[in-house]
Amino acid sequence: MESIQSHTYEVHLEELAEAALKQHIAKSDYSKVFVLVDENTKKHCLPIFLKKLGLEVDAVFEIKSGEEHKNISTCSMVWEFLSNNGGDRKSLLINLGGGVLTDLGGFVASTFKRGIGFINIPTTLLSMVDASIGGKTGVDLGVLKNQIGVINQPEMVLVFPEFLKTLAERQIVSGYAEMLKHGLIKDEEYWKALISMDSYTDAACIQKSIAIKNDVVLQDPTEQGLRKILNFGHTLGHAIESYCLENPDKPTLLHGEAIAIGMILEGYLSHELKGLSRLSLQEIKTSFLAHFKPMTFTPEDIATIVELLKYDKKNSHGDINFVLLQAIGKAVTDVTVPEHLFAKAFAYYEE
Amino acid sequence: MESIQSHTYEVHLEELAEAALKQHIAKSDYSKVFVLVDENTKKHCLPIFLKKLGLEVDAVFEIKSGEEHKNISTCSMVWEFLSNNGGDRKSLLINLGGGVLTDLGGFVASTFKRGIGFINIPTTLLSMVDASIGGKTGVDLGVLKNQIGVINQPEMVLVFPEFLKTLAERQIVSGYAEMLKHGLIKDEEYWKALISMDSYTDAACIQKSIAIKNDVVLQDPTEQGLRKILNFGHTLGHAIESYCLENPDKPTLLHGEAIAIGMILEGYLSHELKGLSRLSLQEIKTSFLAHFKPMTFTPEDIATIVELLKYDKKNSHGDINFVLLQAIGKAVTDVTVPEHLFAKAFAYYEE
Repeated sequence: MESIQSHTYEVHLEELAEAALKQHIAKSDYSKVFVLVDENTKKHCLPIFLKKLGLEVDAVFEIKSGEEHKNISTCSMVWEFLSNNGGDRKSLLINLGGGVLTDLGGFVASTFKRGIGFINIPTTLLSMVDASIGGKTGVDLGVLKNQIGVINQPEMVLVFPEFLKTLAERQIVSGYAEMLKHGLIKDEEYWKALISMDSYTDAACIQKSIAIKNDVVLQDPTEQGLRKILNFGHTLGHAIESYCLENPDKPTLLHGEAIAIGMILEGYLSHELKGLSRLSLQEIKTSFLAHFKPMTFTPEDIATIVELLKYDKKNSHGDINFVLLQAIGKAVTDVTVPEHLFAKAFAYYEE
Repeated sequence: MESIQSHTYEVHLEELAEAALKQHIAKSDYSKVFVLVDENTKKHCLPIFLKKLGLEVDAVFEIKSGEEHKNISTCSMVWEFLSNNGGDRKSLLINLGGGVLTDLGGFVASTFKRGIGFINIPTTLLSMVDASIGGKTGVDLGVLKNQIGVINQPEMVLVFPEFLKTLAERQIVSGYAEMLKHGLIKDEEYWKALISMDSYTDAACIQKSIAIKNDVVLQDPTEQGLRKILNFGHTLGHAIESYCLENPDKPTLLHGEAIAIGMILEGYLSHELKGLSRLSLQEIKTSFLAHFKPMTFTPEDIATIVELLKYDKKNSHGDINFVLLQAIGKAVTDVTVPEHLFAKAFAYYEE
């Protein structure tokens, strides 16, 4: 399957990924090769990966999986590990895991001795189609997501769809939400294809989603304009995700589950403010609810979530900016939303 | 006094610094302006600075001064402060302090919401002539200096020599060590001028030192070659500094005090390996010992310091690389030093 050329690196899939990695390690003069895993990827992916790589790595470090460990304390443990194992400026860190692990590992590598090389090997559908492109690295600050980080590119990204076989269905569906987003913001045909498919993990669709995200990022590397469209569903989605993470009475949502709700809500705002048709809005809601269990929100929940929007790092000067849809496949950025519409959007989601 | 053009920003001195800052704030669309100080700069520099600026800042945060606070915990406090005070991507952080504060503040700004703007206002002689150029930001990891950080440039650097009036003599002399280094690695005439001067804080000398460092950095922004000469005295100096910081029986050295010892030791290595004349070596030792109190090292001290060299972030693949002098004003990089010479260098320093 064809590789995708991003900013300074390539994304390789399937058998090409294996060949590219071997070649890269052979030609690079790394002093040490370290691998970062969590308890899941250590068990399910590391043995397969080491067999593929066919060479010894210097040391493997395990962190705990889960958004609640995506913080500076975990970074400190990884920095200590690298330092204690003789990591130097010519060392390589291979991040083998989902988006939490690749975001954190990318940040640790980008800041260890002012930056060492890293390779991301996303092992979840979400991280394959989302975190694999864009150079965003970072960790959370308390309840606030991705507040600490840098933009920095990996040496390469390797996608092995076979890792998806070890994933729980819920994790897969979470990634599918981001794929649907790629259709909604940029490609109606792809959206139609996705909502009528039986499989969530088709390799050609994974490649298509990576290609869409890559096109957007390459056209706007510093997130000044077009790239904002990738945030569709994420402004409210992130706030809902943070709120549920912090609140013991609420279920902890996976990222895709939160942005699925966000996309329905922001779909409603799109209908109200940007002319998205009632039919398309209904199709968006129906499609997501076919895969994602509905949630309920009290008026207090909604008030707190709206409050959290103000901390979203994409906002400045106190304004809350949204990406909305004019139509399926056509996104528009920098829309200011009147506050009274939020309650109506939640009402539409729950009706 | 003429400004110095660095990579992406300018260093302004004295009255031009004041004008440049006012103009920059007026033309930039910052959502918030924050100032980072320590207990010393809050007392001695902040009132002067706010008067110069002639406008309100949004909030001031105080951290504790000293290398022992240059760590990730302090960063977390500053990140929290920015977040709790509504800092967003368009916010500005002004770092008002010595090298510890500007290194840490630069790192915090470079990683807050994946990077906000920052302005450095060095308040010590050392930070004026050293930390003001080069884009190095970061903090220590335990006893190991500057292990965590990124390369990132400030929006501008402002040098107000009047802040030096509030500094203790010992702090001033520490900065003078870096100025002497600039002479040693690049400009014999400047070296001669410095060692025959009565004042440590001559504004023209500060400007000259900044200009020398800037020339070197601009020729080698990614530290692949020439820039390494700035590490003269620092390989052993850093190890000595770390060792003393960690060891309760040893005095805590200021950076300049440690590298002054490092420059005598590495001067000796230069004489042994790179042909630095006996006369020049003697001049280096005499000049430093005229300003810096001699220390004594036991054989155990020396063994531990040599062990620490292996963690220096400039080293890779286990080799320890030194910058040495062929003559005063002429440095050579990437010299491997046989281990038996270290004890002899310490013996020369103490004799």
